[in-house]
This record gives sequence, C-alpha cells and structure tokens, in this order.
Amino acid sequence: MVEERLAAAAQVVAPIESVYWWAGEIQCSDEWLVLMKTTLGRFERLARRVRELHSYEVPQIVAVALTVGTADYLEWIRRETSPDFGE
Amino acid sequence: MVEERLAAAAQVVAPIESVYWWAGEIQCSDEWLVLMKTTLGRFERLARRVRELHSYEVPQIVAVALTVGTADYLEWIRRETSPDFGE
Amino acid sequence: MVEERLAAAAQVVAPIESVYWWAGEIQCSDEWLVLMKTTLGRFERLARRVRELHSYEVPQIVAVALTVGTADYLEWIRRETSPDFGE
Repeated sequence: MVEERLAAAAQVVAPIESVYWWAGEIQCSDEWLVLMKTTLGRFERLARRVRELHSYEVPQIVAVALTVGTADYLEWIRRETSPDFGE
Repeated sequence: MVEERLAAAAQVVAPIESVYWWAGEIQCSDEWLVLMKTTLGRFERLARRVRELHSYEVPQIVAVALTVGTADYLEWIRRETSPDFGE
Repeated sequence: MVEERLAAAAQVVAPIESVYWWAGEIQCSDEWLVLMKTTLGRFERLARRVRELHSYEVPQIVAVALTVGTADYLEWIRRETSPDFGE
C-alpha cells in the first residue's frame, strides 16, 4: 500500500484479539490492525487493493476523518500519496 | 457486548499504558482498549452495558464516526447489531 | 502533556511498527502511538508541545473528533484540561 503510494504510512498494531459475528457464530481471531494515512481521494483504490490482498471475505476497510492536524503533516500525506508519483 | 448484539465486533488492544488525572492526582494504569463496531442507534445501550460491567467510576465510552467504509462491511455491522436478533 | 493539563489522559500503544515515506525512501521504525484526550481548544498548544519534544521533523500530530460519548466522561476531559488549572 505504502510502496504503491496508496498510503503515506501504515502503522501496524498487532496482534490484537478480535471477537465478532460471522456465519451465525461468534468467532475469535488474532488480527493485525493497520492504521493507514491517506487522502479521501485515494481511499477507493486503497480499499480495492486491501480487498485483493486480504484473507477475509468481508475485511474491515473503514476510514475516519482527521478533524485537525499540523499543516506540515497533512501536506506530507497529500504529497506522498499523490497519483503523480510514477503512475 | 458482541454476544448481546450491541456490537458486531470487539477488538482488544492490550495492555496499553494509561496516564490520566483522577481525584486531583496523576494516575498510571494498564488498560485494555476495546474497539467495538456498532451503529449510532445501538450506542446508548452499549454504553449502558459497558458502564454496568466496567470497574471505573467514569469509564471512557466514546464513539468516532466511520467517515467511509466498504459497503459490505458497513452492512455487516448493521445486520449483526440489528435489534431484531432475538430481543 | 497530562501534567501540563494539555490532555486529560494519554494512552500509549507501543511498540507499533510503522512503514512510511520519508526523504524519497520507505522507512520502517518502531513507534509509540499516544492517544490523548483533550478539547479542540487545547489542540494547538498540545501540538506545539509535542513538536517541541518529538524527535521527528514532521511528527504525526492529528485529532479525530469524538462523535458521541458519555456525558460524565466528556465533562471529565473538559474539567481536567481547563486552562484555569494553575496557569
């Protein structure tokens, strides 16, 4: 994702323990929570790529808006995920 | 919470180290960060249930809106937390 | 941050593994994810203080709005980060 400029950064919090409903039963799994920093404009392509690589039929691919952030950091995200980078 | 259909999933990130103000002093504790996926409509009941079970007088029960997510995943949350499930 | 009333609490999730673009190359580092609870009004001072202490040139200092939360917990954040505390 990062290499393909779909995210400027990916932070891995792992393992986490996940408990969830699937196929009518409660499942328990160790999972990796990956926090990726990207732009709204790149989300769809990032989601498609995650889905291609993920082992789950319905992976958790969601985004939360950054309400505020330091200008240089937000600019860094925009710059590093810019589609102009060698597409 | 998951069993009671108040959340479709609960992801446990633990232990985390928490530093906070309480009773006029800075406290340090190991805590469990539990990320639960639910709907806004279920939040109140989920919050009430967490409060019943939690050991803190003022537990951290907050929600952050998912700005965007894949359609199947969001539908899965709605379906698995539906009040129609055996209430 | 907590001691200086810039945040009511700080939760440390560590170590996390971070992969990111910097100076034209992909970097990998162990990082500490620090989740701080504060008010929008205190964000700027908190951000300035983090920058003073952080080792990165462009540290990740962002905020996500709490969409909903229990009244006592939100009040606790406001009270514990109030500028009136000995400034």
